[in-house]
Amino acid sequence: MKNTLGNSLSITLFGESHGTAIGAVVDGLAAGIKVDENFIAKQMDKRRAYGKISTGRQEEDKAEIISGVFNSFTTGTPLTIIIKNKNTRSGDYERSAARPGHADYTGFTKYNGFEDFRGGGHFSGRLTAPIVAVGAIVLDALKNKGILIGTHIKKCAGIEDRNFENLAEDLTALDDKIFAVFSEKTASEMKEKITAAAEDGDSVGGILETAVAGLPAGVGEPWFDSLESTISHGIFSIPAVKGIEFGAGFSIADMKGSKANDPMKYDGKKVVTETNNNGGINGGISNGMPVIFRTAIKPTPSIFKEQNTIDFVEEKNTILQLKGRHDPCIVHRAAVVQTSITALAVADMLVSRFGTDYLKTEG
Amino acid sequence: MKNTLGNSLSITLFGESHGTAIGAVVDGLAAGIKVDENFIAKQMDKRRAYGKISTGRQEEDKAEIISGVFNSFTTGTPLTIIIKNKNTRSGDYERSAARPGHADYTGFTKYNGFEDFRGGGHFSGRLTAPIVAVGAIVLDALKNKGILIGTHIKKCAGIEDRNFENLAEDLTALDDKIFAVFSEKTASEMKEKITAAAEDGDSVGGILETAVAGLPAGVGEPWFDSLESTISHGIFSIPAVKGIEFGAGFSIADMKGSKANDPMKYDGKKVVTETNNNGGINGGISNGMPVIFRTAIKPTPSIFKEQNTIDFVEEKNTILQLKGRHDPCIVHRAAVVQTSITALAVADMLVSRFGTDYLKTEG
Amino acid sequence: MKNTLGNSLSITLFGESHGTAIGAVVDGLAAGIKVDENFIAKQMDKRRAYGKISTGRQEEDKAEIISGVFNSFTTGTPLTIIIKNKNTRSGDYERSAARPGHADYTGFTKYNGFEDFRGGGHFSGRLTAPIVAVGAIVLDALKNKGILIGTHIKKCAGIEDRNFENLAEDLTALDDKIFAVFSEKTASEMKEKITAAAEDGDSVGGILETAVAGLPAGVGEPWFDSLESTISHGIFSIPAVKGIEFGAGFSIADMKGSKANDPMKYDGKKVVTETNNNGGINGGISNGMPVIFRTAIKPTPSIFKEQNTIDFVEEKNTILQLKGRHDPCIVHRAAVVQTSITALAVADMLVSRFGTDYLKTEG
Amino acid sequence: MKNTLGNSLSITLFGESHGTAIGAVVDGLAAGIKVDENFIAKQMDKRRAYGKISTGRQEEDKAEIISGVFNSFTTGTPLTIIIKNKNTRSGDYERSAARPGHADYTGFTKYNGFEDFRGGGHFSGRLTAPIVAVGAIVLDALKNKGILIGTHIKKCAGIEDRNFENLAEDLTALDDKIFAVFSEKTASEMKEKITAAAEDGDSVGGILETAVAGLPAGVGEPWFDSLESTISHGIFSIPAVKGIEFGAGFSIADMKGSKANDPMKYDGKKVVTETNNNGGINGGISNGMPVIFRTAIKPTPSIFKEQNTIDFVEEKNTILQLKGRHDPCIVHRAAVVQTSITALAVADMLVSRFGTDYLKTEG
Repeated sequence: MKNTLGNSLSITLFGESHGTAIGAVVDGLAAGIKVDENFIAKQMDKRRAYGKISTGRQEEDKAEIISGVFNSFTTGTPLTIIIKNKNTRSGDYERSAARPGHADYTGFTKYNGFEDFRGGGHFSGRLTAPIVAVGAIVLDALKNKGILIGTHIKKCAGIEDRNFENLAEDLTALDDKIFAVFSEKTASEMKEKITAAAEDGDSVGGILETAVAGLPAGVGEPWFDSLESTISHGIFSIPAVKGIEFGAGFSIADMKGSKANDPMKYDGKKVVTETNNNGGINGGISNGMPVIFRTAIKPTPSIFKEQNTIDFVEEKNTILQLKGRHDPCIVHRAAVVQTSITALAVADMLVSRFGTDYLKTEG
Repeated sequence: MKNTLGNSLSITLFGESHGTAIGAVVDGLAAGIKVDENFIAKQMDKRRAYGKISTGRQEEDKAEIISGVFNSFTTGTPLTIIIKNKNTRSGDYERSAARPGHADYTGFTKYNGFEDFRGGGHFSGRLTAPIVAVGAIVLDALKNKGILIGTHIKKCAGIEDRNFENLAEDLTALDDKIFAVFSEKTASEMKEKITAAAEDGDSVGGILETAVAGLPAGVGEPWFDSLESTISHGIFSIPAVKGIEFGAGFSIADMKGSKANDPMKYDGKKVVTETNNNGGINGGISNGMPVIFRTAIKPTPSIFKEQNTIDFVEEKNTILQLKGRHDPCIVHRAAVVQTSITALAVADMLVSRFGTDYLKTEG
Repeated sequence: MKNTLGNSLSITLFGESHGTAIGAVVDGLAAGIKVDENFIAKQMDKRRAYGKISTGRQEEDKAEIISGVFNSFTTGTPLTIIIKNKNTRSGDYERSAARPGHADYTGFTKYNGFEDFRGGGHFSGRLTAPIVAVGAIVLDALKNKGILIGTHIKKCAGIEDRNFENLAEDLTALDDKIFAVFSEKTASEMKEKITAAAEDGDSVGGILETAVAGLPAGVGEPWFDSLESTISHGIFSIPAVKGIEFGAGFSIADMKGSKANDPMKYDGKKVVTETNNNGGINGGISNGMPVIFRTAIKPTPSIFKEQNTIDFVEEKNTILQLKGRHDPCIVHRAAVVQTSITALAVADMLVSRFGTDYLKTEG
Repeated sequence: MKNTLGNSLSITLFGESHGTAIGAVVDGLAAGIKVDENFIAKQMDKRRAYGKISTGRQEEDKAEIISGVFNSFTTGTPLTIIIKNKNTRSGDYERSAARPGHADYTGFTKYNGFEDFRGGGHFSGRLTAPIVAVGAIVLDALKNKGILIGTHIKKCAGIEDRNFENLAEDLTALDDKIFAVFSEKTASEMKEKITAAAEDGDSVGGILETAVAGLPAGVGEPWFDSLESTISHGIFSIPAVKGIEFGAGFSIADMKGSKANDPMKYDGKKVVTETNNNGGINGGISNGMPVIFRTAIKPTPSIFKEQNTIDFVEEKNTILQLKGRHDPCIVHRAAVVQTSITALAVADMLVSRFGTDYLKTEG
């Protein structure tokens, strides 16, 4: 199941950047989930390239649902979304000068030279578009069950945003943001840094922070399908993610147990913890507190500075001066992808626990 | 497949801390892998509790192979290891006072009160013992193919060890260490800190760093079964891991592309990179450089200080004063577990790519 | 993985009869398999409806490859085929009169009324078209490895064809037949019977026999992924199959061991058996003899006679007088589907054993 | 997942006939299923060899539960059963004279000579014992939900038993039978035939018929995980099964649609069909009628007559005169295995649809 994520609810991803179309098939969705095309479009907008801070390749990215929806509700059979590739300039790509930090060389070693290398082929960040489209349907279904998921840019190009505070308010606010930063001032500073890097032919990275609110306690498995295992498995499929940490994350390594442990208490009938250093997960299973995690997003490898690299067809060293259209930063575009994959991972666990019909829209 | 990891080569884990036995079944092993009981025992030693820096529960942890090995070679059919539980003191455990940071409460919510709670039951760190036993067999097979894996304590209780330097030498040196720190002086400092925390009824955490040397380029999948996805899926099953980062990890978020990219060149016929910020992985696939990652290990949640918590049977707040035998630190014991799971994850990818017989012992 | 078949090589099926398109994604194909569009078209022809013996719905069934092929070779990344639905007359279908023997009622109970019921929706035999298209690619790759697969109509409407005789010749002959019967005279008799049934508003069934020649010994797994388990799992996904038997099949139940056992001998270096009552499989694993199996294909449930049935929306008994366009027999159209699914099942086992690159086209 | 069956509820099988122990791990069981050791023992009795009609190897076959049960209820974590091998006479087995019809040669080709060949090793029918043990737990849980499963010997050594009639009564009656034939007279005739074959050094086969009563409509998947696919996948793992047919089975091939279709009607609020030619399944999904299927069981290949075969170590033809202890018939012992695997397959589908807790014992 190489290009498939999930067991009870699964997504299979296909397509190449300069092929006919990219897309995804989702299986295991409940029959009877309301499909809101406007919300899909809204989510797709968050991933779309725009302005100086993104690639010049502007794609309409119209998600066409070609199966699995009937009269605006999911049918319960596989839901397929395709997005046609339109604005392609394959001539910009050269065959054999490997972009350092990119999958050009590894793709070649894996596929023995048969890979579609144009525009990164199957490795292109473009394939996150169908993930966002199907993620929108799942996010909507989860919202119906009181589960909200959102991601903000915790840091970009060295500029930091505040942490999550009032989760309900923050997640609602994020839902309407294209550039997922709480403070507009901070957002402007980040964009300036991105633009500056772009003008220098360089790129920048950052940190994304995701919160899942409203997840009931008791979701996830001990050991191999822990909630952390399941989420991280999905999240590392996002190109550019090089790290993930839950709750206090790496800083927990320096804490003592008396500080790291989250004291528990009843808040009415509900169990809560005073701190959330464990990020809402104990023993691989949700404890009812928000699930919080952060990811490290590397700067996009496609830069316009000269780079030492190899020509793997001629098998010699060479110098790469990149052409084409590339993002100087993908942190802001990756936020909605991270939210979408989290939704898929969490929904998979919920469906496994509570059955196929769990995500059905009520009433 | 809740307690199963891997597709082509899989491990299924079973057992409870105070039950009859714990164990694991491994399926997909090549027929004809030499099984070295001494190496299994050596690896088990690294995980064993000893001295003041570990729990007082001393288990012989004898791994009995009850299927899948014939005349000292794997048969190719499922290999099963069981480890009997002997030194149990179930009376030490109370039913309903949830240890903060532990799985007592989440296990209860998931299993509706039917979980075997004694000694942490199925959530006990004890279940890592069979992982180490089967990991030893796989490590040996990988070594035969020129692939070496090892883990050292990068940091413990705030004390740091040096990074990996000469990988071949370092991995060989680690193979003989019970406490996986390069410098003996640093090791002593760490042990002092652990002992001090233990005497204070508290616990400490740390950071483990793993290296995979000799992995050929072209292993892993794009997207959902990326090498990072596969390794992190396995690694987060280790109790106490709250974060993982590959290569430069979280620090890559602050780099520019021109710094983060790893310039490539030919070293003879072999492709190498000048830096290894990507940790040997591009686009989810190995590039032939060492795979390097670090994990955040939280301090053990079982401490002997008074803690605010809940009694989830009586549904009331309470104060916990823990009894029993617990580790003040599991960083040093977790190192070999991390190595073992990495071996399983990497072997799974290799077998998927090169077929079942790949790990067969030559000659 | 509800709509996915296979582990190392998998197919995911999607679409509804009257939706936008139907299709399939295949993952795990080697990079570098030559894709012969003419052979795909030739195989699609065998499944196409034509003449009086099939439905009046004539679909062009043009298989469009939208991902996974580049310069006429597979890329190794997911290969997606879609077939657009064009000749639809949704008005012919009523919502709630369940066709006896069909999935109308079971689909309703499973999908709670949200299923796309038009033309049988996701249950339509039309979804076998993408299976045939991807099957063609896999069949070609297997042929390259010396493995030939073909299916003939052993019986239709009570008329019997001869058994397989010279397998190499028979399989080659079948490759060029639209109506897969060895004797033209027998074929004519079958077609007459089908036409007669159609004129009577009724339908007929039959028996299909498949042979896999050239499969090396040692393929398949003991127990749960036996070759029989794997093939039958796939084959029962063909609508209308109600039984499968390998080798001597049900007649073996009446044999004594001394007759049922297939005596073995060396034919040069190759091991052969004098009889093939076990259909080329012992203990779930291929023995190097041809794999032979037969399936029972029921008469198509969509007939034009009045039938007692239920209206499951109104929850009352009713009488159904079917309209629309339906096949009086699908035995002949199902033959190539059976061949295709067998190819997928066998290829999955081979790739699992010998690695991803096994099916790559040589030279 | 070579030795694993099931997705939401899975069983992993391990062990060799003459190794330390055989066993199984079941994962995905609800927490809170009552475990009745007496019922497990009762089911094990049905599989046990006894009298002249079975092998002389008498094993106690004591199923020891070593994980997953606490205070007589399932914990929800993996349940492991082991059965120690005691009565072994490994000296009876020769290495390289392949028994025709058995897995000796195919095992050798698959495992390259490393297989544990003693007593059939991993291929031994003995491995069905743990399947029966875990099947008993699942059968009990299903019974609690009103779902009854049973298997009778429809035919053995040419002697036929009647069909299922009153299903509730028949299934209850079967529950208490060691030799699963409705008529005692017929049972005696079968046993005589088996004994006669044994005295002649030969063996006999037969047909087993299984019924699943009380399965709700809407269970199963369209296409690849159809109820037929799922059941047959499991059933073909039983050594000796060479065919399976649902409902009217192969005889449906000769019917017209007007006869094969099962007319539907309301019986109160419940939908029933007048006939059950489709065996309770339409479009791969249960329709609420009993699921009925039959399997062809071949005569045991281990017979005491001289047989032409090969010596695959010396690579020459030879004549085999078998020694050791073998069953002249396994039809009667296989009945409870067939029931058990059916229970596992059906339970997997139910848990996938209704969630993990579905099988929990009420009250």
